[in-house]
Amino acid sequence: MTLTKPTFDVIRRLIPPLSPDFHKGQAGRVCVIGGSDDYTGAPYFSAISALKLGADMAHVVCQPTAAIAIKNPDLTSEEIIDNVSSLFKRTHVLTIGPGLSRDKMMLECTKGIILKAKEEHIPMVIDADGLFLIQNNPEIIKDYSEAILTPNVNEFRRLCETMRIEFEDDHKGELAQKLSQAFGGVTIVQKGKNDLISNGNSIFLVDHKSGLKRCGGQGDILTGLISTFVAWGVAYKKNIWQHDNSISPTDIPMLASFAGCTINRECSWAAFSKLGRSVQTSDMIPEIGPSFQRLFER
Amino acid sequence: MTLTKPTFDVIRRLIPPLSPDFHKGQAGRVCVIGGSDDYTGAPYFSAISALKLGADMAHVVCQPTAAIAIKNPDLTSEEIIDNVSSLFKRTHVLTIGPGLSRDKMMLECTKGIILKAKEEHIPMVIDADGLFLIQNNPEIIKDYSEAILTPNVNEFRRLCETMRIEFEDDHKGELAQKLSQAFGGVTIVQKGKNDLISNGNSIFLVDHKSGLKRCGGQGDILTGLISTFVAWGVAYKKNIWQHDNSISPTDIPMLASFAGCTINRECSWAAFSKLGRSVQTSDMIPEIGPSFQRLFER
Repeated sequence: MTLTKPTFDVIRRLIPPLSPDFHKGQAGRVCVIGGSDDYTGAPYFSAISALKLGADMAHVVCQPTAAIAIKNPDLTSEEIIDNVSSLFKRTHVLTIGPGLSRDKMMLECTKGIILKAKEEHIPMVIDADGLFLIQNNPEIIKDYSEAILTPNVNEFRRLCETMRIEFEDDHKGELAQKLSQAFGGVTIVQKGKNDLISNGNSIFLVDHKSGLKRCGGQGDILTGLISTFVAWGVAYKKNIWQHDNSISPTDIPMLASFAGCTINRECSWAAFSKLGRSVQTSDMIPEIGPSFQRLFER
Repeated sequence: MTLTKPTFDVIRRLIPPLSPDFHKGQAGRVCVIGGSDDYTGAPYFSAISALKLGADMAHVVCQPTAAIAIKNPDLTSEEIIDNVSSLFKRTHVLTIGPGLSRDKMMLECTKGIILKAKEEHIPMVIDADGLFLIQNNPEIIKDYSEAILTPNVNEFRRLCETMRIEFEDDHKGELAQKLSQAFGGVTIVQKGKNDLISNGNSIFLVDHKSGLKRCGGQGDILTGLISTFVAWGVAYKKNIWQHDNSISPTDIPMLASFAGCTINRECSWAAFSKLGRSVQTSDMIPEIGPSFQRLFER
């Protein structure tokens, strides 16, 4: 299997036009499941990134005590985490894991949310402690082709262990492909020096230039960016604007992942080239709009 | 009935001059009823917008637990929501609904507040879950010509259902006029690609250029802007500055709504033209002052 890349023109087809005919919510509603007493920054980065890329609305479902700290007025929170299915009607994509923690109750609730969301065919992007949950309960996500997992090197290694795949250094994406196949076609985004993306069939390489600082939180931004593209994919499938239907629905998770990784790297490079070693993930947020415009805006 | 627009010169007559003879509060005191555990951004956007447009003071009455997050020092909050009538003496206009939630107790309190406020002839602007309350209790607002309702497309459809008006796509404001008549002359602001405003008699069209991003929270800003103009209308009727009394009191809700919609669109366009798809409602707030000055300042 050779490494490939989609053209930017294909990605552009997924992006809703800016039109006065749309109303609030049509261009993407993202729901982040994460945020705990210990981690309030992660779900904020994820949600604000989704919004800055162009999603209309983002909800954060978190521990009640974490809600006070996630205080950007663009975001909302929910107290009763196991009652989130009422939000599903208003959700195009679930972003699961940023700041979730390994709190037993939080993981138990998240498991329930994933199972319910699958019944309603809601796509999901899973990262961080959401991957810890999957590592210990791989069956809840197996064969669900609407799921995208975004492991870093350690999370990737542990997922390989869970699925009894021998881990080795691999720069060709064959391991990501094997892992995807073991999960029955779940999309794997293996983050690293280059990002490797596979749905078991094809493998995408993302080698776009990136900053050289590995500050915490960049993965949270990535989940928000991919989630917005997944939400746009839902809008694409609903034909909310006129297009030629040239993108197959089954290709959307791969394209959304590729677009998210590419923009994330562009933001990371833009912030790093200004601030060098002192760059923080928060410095990447204002780069999302300009990065998107440079790469994709028509 | 043909669509009309008031001239900006008529709107200007409603705007209090900036005078050293005024004292704090004369140029508008707004009270926002909204803000719950789940939604703290909405009442903040509403209140800060009223203030940035030029109201002297804004109170937010919200759930006690939401008060912690709405922490802008320009705002105050009240713990005992059913004791707000003591605030009425200091209130020119009630802004009801931003972030209210559908919590049963909150809705019950709000219903009581509306009934009391009507006794004291306090004007009100009702949006969001305040409209949910009206949809289920239309009798509490019927025939109260000091009320302005600001429904978006879905809220408008539901209000039509409540009043047994057949919903159809309408760009001429005839449906808004019918809805207003069914409510006995309540002013209806039908938000959309263009905004349509009717008090049952006349219909105003607002087609001022607007941004193309439908981020959540823009409706909250609109409530604050309209509320300030309504408060200025109260000041106008009290003759706090010398004018020619050429505006009929019954025209004030229509003019205030037109002015609010126009400034809201100007802000939205100003922020969108700088930030494109990445614009957030918070980016509109700093545009309120400059937008007002461009359009209306003498």
